[in-house]
Amino acid sequence: MGKRKNRLSADEYVEGILAGNRVILSRAITLVESSLVSDQQLAEEVVNRIMPHTGNSLRIGITGVPGVGKSTFIESFGHLVVEQGDKLAVLAVDPSSQKTRGSILGDKTRMEQLSHDSRAFIRPTPAGAALGGVSAKTRESMLLCEAAGFNVIFIETVGVGQSEIMVKGMVDFFLLLMLSGAGDELQGIKKGIIEIADAIAITKADGENVDAAKKAKREYSNALHLFPLNDNGWSPQVKVCSAMTKDGLPEIWSMIQKYESSMRTNGYLEKNRSNQRVNWFYEHARYLLESRFFHQSEVKSSLIDMLAQIKNGEKSSISVARYLVDYFLKDIPND
Amino acid sequence: MGKRKNRLSADEYVEGILAGNRVILSRAITLVESSLVSDQQLAEEVVNRIMPHTGNSLRIGITGVPGVGKSTFIESFGHLVVEQGDKLAVLAVDPSSQKTRGSILGDKTRMEQLSHDSRAFIRPTPAGAALGGVSAKTRESMLLCEAAGFNVIFIETVGVGQSEIMVKGMVDFFLLLMLSGAGDELQGIKKGIIEIADAIAITKADGENVDAAKKAKREYSNALHLFPLNDNGWSPQVKVCSAMTKDGLPEIWSMIQKYESSMRTNGYLEKNRSNQRVNWFYEHARYLLESRFFHQSEVKSSLIDMLAQIKNGEKSSISVARYLVDYFLKDIPND
Repeated sequence: MGKRKNRLSADEYVEGILAGNRVILSRAITLVESSLVSDQQLAEEVVNRIMPHTGNSLRIGITGVPGVGKSTFIESFGHLVVEQGDKLAVLAVDPSSQKTRGSILGDKTRMEQLSHDSRAFIRPTPAGAALGGVSAKTRESMLLCEAAGFNVIFIETVGVGQSEIMVKGMVDFFLLLMLSGAGDELQGIKKGIIEIADAIAITKADGENVDAAKKAKREYSNALHLFPLNDNGWSPQVKVCSAMTKDGLPEIWSMIQKYESSMRTNGYLEKNRSNQRVNWFYEHARYLLESRFFHQSEVKSSLIDMLAQIKNGEKSSISVARYLVDYFLKDIPND
Repeated sequence: MGKRKNRLSADEYVEGILAGNRVILSRAITLVESSLVSDQQLAEEVVNRIMPHTGNSLRIGITGVPGVGKSTFIESFGHLVVEQGDKLAVLAVDPSSQKTRGSILGDKTRMEQLSHDSRAFIRPTPAGAALGGVSAKTRESMLLCEAAGFNVIFIETVGVGQSEIMVKGMVDFFLLLMLSGAGDELQGIKKGIIEIADAIAITKADGENVDAAKKAKREYSNALHLFPLNDNGWSPQVKVCSAMTKDGLPEIWSMIQKYESSMRTNGYLEKNRSNQRVNWFYEHARYLLESRFFHQSEVKSSLIDMLAQIKNGEKSSISVARYLVDYFLKDIPND
């Protein structure tokens, strides 16, 4: 099938999405992910038209280093969510997957049960060059899923880089999965991630791990008390769970629902989303400006020598930045 | 005195700085801080010419919320440093000072003793509109101080915002001052700051505060062990001190010196600085691109309506960003 044949009209996309048609939703996400200019223009029209139908979901970020059991957690936890009558979409942000040509969601078979459940929609990591681009695509995909009637969204990320900060900026609740035993495995978690979590779930609390998990829970609870309070009044919680035995999963879901209801009541949920929308705009504008700048052929070719001079301390970083930006924008009036 | 009269030639600035002339150093920093285009060009030449004479200092970031006793700490700690034979420059990054028209260093009289000490050079916060601008000015001022022979630099910041992350990106060692009693006063510290500290010093450990400070030290030590290790192998330390009795200050200085010597030996200090120089370039290029974009009159006037549409969910943040950036760069070829 050629590109043209695969493409629908804006009307067809919008109607299909609003009717909850999963095939059309999938194709709309593919359109959002496309780097073709004509696709981007169409995607923009579709996204702007479904905007009034977005926002009716609880957006949950889930992160944790490889090995923490993220996919089995999402499989079991997602099953619990759909069993309670919700419609679940699982999306992913993972800029590293471009390098390895893998994907944190791999193919859908990694979540065997959930991927065959008609109440769930699983979408692997978008392909794209840079985090800013991947992030924008994930955000727009989330809006499409909401317009298609999914009322719980999981956004999965790998817990090892900047992507968590970006995901934090698109969700209502941020859950960090951790292993018990505060030792070597912690080194994979980047600094700052623990502090942005609304809750930590200690995973694999089954069999002979149960005691270690409870100990870890106490330690993290104590440590979190030393942190500054969130400005919404929420104290981050620590829970233990097992994706295998399902122990602890209902408690995590009821904690998140309690969070949602209290944040809706005090107005923080909507206030936070409105701030997030404004931040998305600023972030994405910065990302686009930067992409254009660093991809311009003159900037690119000057940069090689200049970076070498910056590294060896021959030129000031600040003055090189000034020089290149002035050069790039020389035809644009400086108001 | 008019602007012209105050201005020296590039040769005069460079020679004066390299001769350690404090008056000329001060005037060079004023030049760096100036927003006049002609001043900026001259400043750029001066900074690029002194570059080979920079880097010979230990750069220490010091942060803490108002009330933690930052100026008395710097006064006492700085006195200890100069007594040991070092030449100390104290600079400040505080974007909030533009709003209040104050400055975290206030006038120099806040550090009565140190400001009259010929072995120390104290420079208040630069005036400037945005954090990115203030940060660039502080970085260049630091280089000027190094060229003038100061071999220990303190960069002070307020501990309540993004400025810490910026300061972390320009120093070798980052010290967080905290009060004992992990209670209300912690709320002023922003999330993520604790995790970037190389050491925490519990201040005001004198009189009846001593026990509380020791307790806080234990608690923070335990909490810090749960954090990921630094990639340089350094485990963040917690110390107690009193600027009044001077207790603990020598221990903090010897800890920092131990850090310096071990980081010089393992090559991390130079590797970190080389990375910082590259990051400064990227950060400042982004900052300049963004400033030009958001200050362009057409972008500015469209933005008001569009931000309202983003806030109420009428338009997608991403598509508005795309539209405005494309408009701004319409005359620049898109490679």
